[in-house]
Amino acid sequence: MSESAEKNSSSAEPVSKAVVSRLSLYLRELQHLVRDGRETTSSSELGALLGVTDAQIRKDLANFGQFGYPGIGYRPDELIAAIKRILGTDQHWHAALVGAGNLGRALLGYKGFRQQGFRLVAVFDNDASKIGTRIEDVPVYPMDRLPEIARDHTIRLGIVAVPAAAAQEVADRLVQAGVEGILNFAPVTIRLPKTVQQVGVDLAIELEQLSFAVVRCGQSG
Amino acid sequence: MSESAEKNSSSAEPVSKAVVSRLSLYLRELQHLVRDGRETTSSSELGALLGVTDAQIRKDLANFGQFGYPGIGYRPDELIAAIKRILGTDQHWHAALVGAGNLGRALLGYKGFRQQGFRLVAVFDNDASKIGTRIEDVPVYPMDRLPEIARDHTIRLGIVAVPAAAAQEVADRLVQAGVEGILNFAPVTIRLPKTVQQVGVDLAIELEQLSFAVVRCGQSG
Repeated sequence: MSESAEKNSSSAEPVSKAVVSRLSLYLRELQHLVRDGRETTSSSELGALLGVTDAQIRKDLANFGQFGYPGIGYRPDELIAAIKRILGTDQHWHAALVGAGNLGRALLGYKGFRQQGFRLVAVFDNDASKIGTRIEDVPVYPMDRLPEIARDHTIRLGIVAVPAAAAQEVADRLVQAGVEGILNFAPVTIRLPKTVQQVGVDLAIELEQLSFAVVRCGQSG
Repeated sequence: MSESAEKNSSSAEPVSKAVVSRLSLYLRELQHLVRDGRETTSSSELGALLGVTDAQIRKDLANFGQFGYPGIGYRPDELIAAIKRILGTDQHWHAALVGAGNLGRALLGYKGFRQQGFRLVAVFDNDASKIGTRIEDVPVYPMDRLPEIARDHTIRLGIVAVPAAAAQEVADRLVQAGVEGILNFAPVTIRLPKTVQQVGVDLAIELEQLSFAVVRCGQSG
């Protein structure tokens, strides 16, 4: 009997985006603990470090199975392996970035991707002055080489970092090149076949989350 | 009687991050509709445009009150005003950006912020070669001028775009300068007083959401 009565372990029922985001946070904190040489931890300790309740942590994990040992807690290295399996980051993912502007450059310089198993193997841009160069040691190609490079490098994910007006066309071309998922930074909703997954990152939405929290917490108690 | 029996309108009970994110998406799509000259819409139409169910839209809005007209649907301009009030973006927010690297530059060039009522009024960086310059017409200051500039420009939000190792110290200084909320791009959990709100943007977490979706949808039906 788990704490969350409605959930069965390891089923493929929908899990909310919030749960998946928290798994990523747990993973980060567990990686810190392992780096510090820790061999056990608990939902209370993780919760205190992350500002969530221990019940929330246990409930989130219960969506995916049974973890931890009675009287001991969790072994960080085992829980890291389990969460990576859940998130799919126990495998390595090759991704293509489209758009070598400031945002694209920031993404190429971002060390967090590789730490979590994502590798940006190619950049695509229409700017002739960029094509043939390398940014953060990643080669820049013209868009028309996307199908060939995607095939040769087993690229499974595409990252869209182009202006809004170009996002749908770029997404269509990524789909044609066989990617299974698209991370979209353009502030538009792009339409994709049901077989291709999409996560949209609209940076203004993040700021709206923040203004919402500030306004709401200012109003109430 | 609303569709979601547990919810009362306009109460300050916790609303999930997922609901708030969807409000932002509704806002974007309504803004498109107004730009196209549309005077009415419906939860079915919005849902079809955004790939969510009409029931979800009605349920999300019911957290915050009663919207729309029987037999007519929603008036986009009215619903835009209501959602902006909920998100706090009916007011203008001045924000300070800390970190003028590639990510900082990308954020400064990002048009979506201003469209939604956020204005980056100052950039702070320790690099002497950047101080005194302007990036996207926003002046770059040294960190020690933060308290003064924050006061003079009524800066209420801080955006942290510095390496992980510097993030906590930068956040502490933003708190001392009186910001009410922090948007954190560094891939670490920062600790803040309870009175200061935080939204963390870890770009690898977004990719983990995507790999999770790809792996999960590949496994099941």
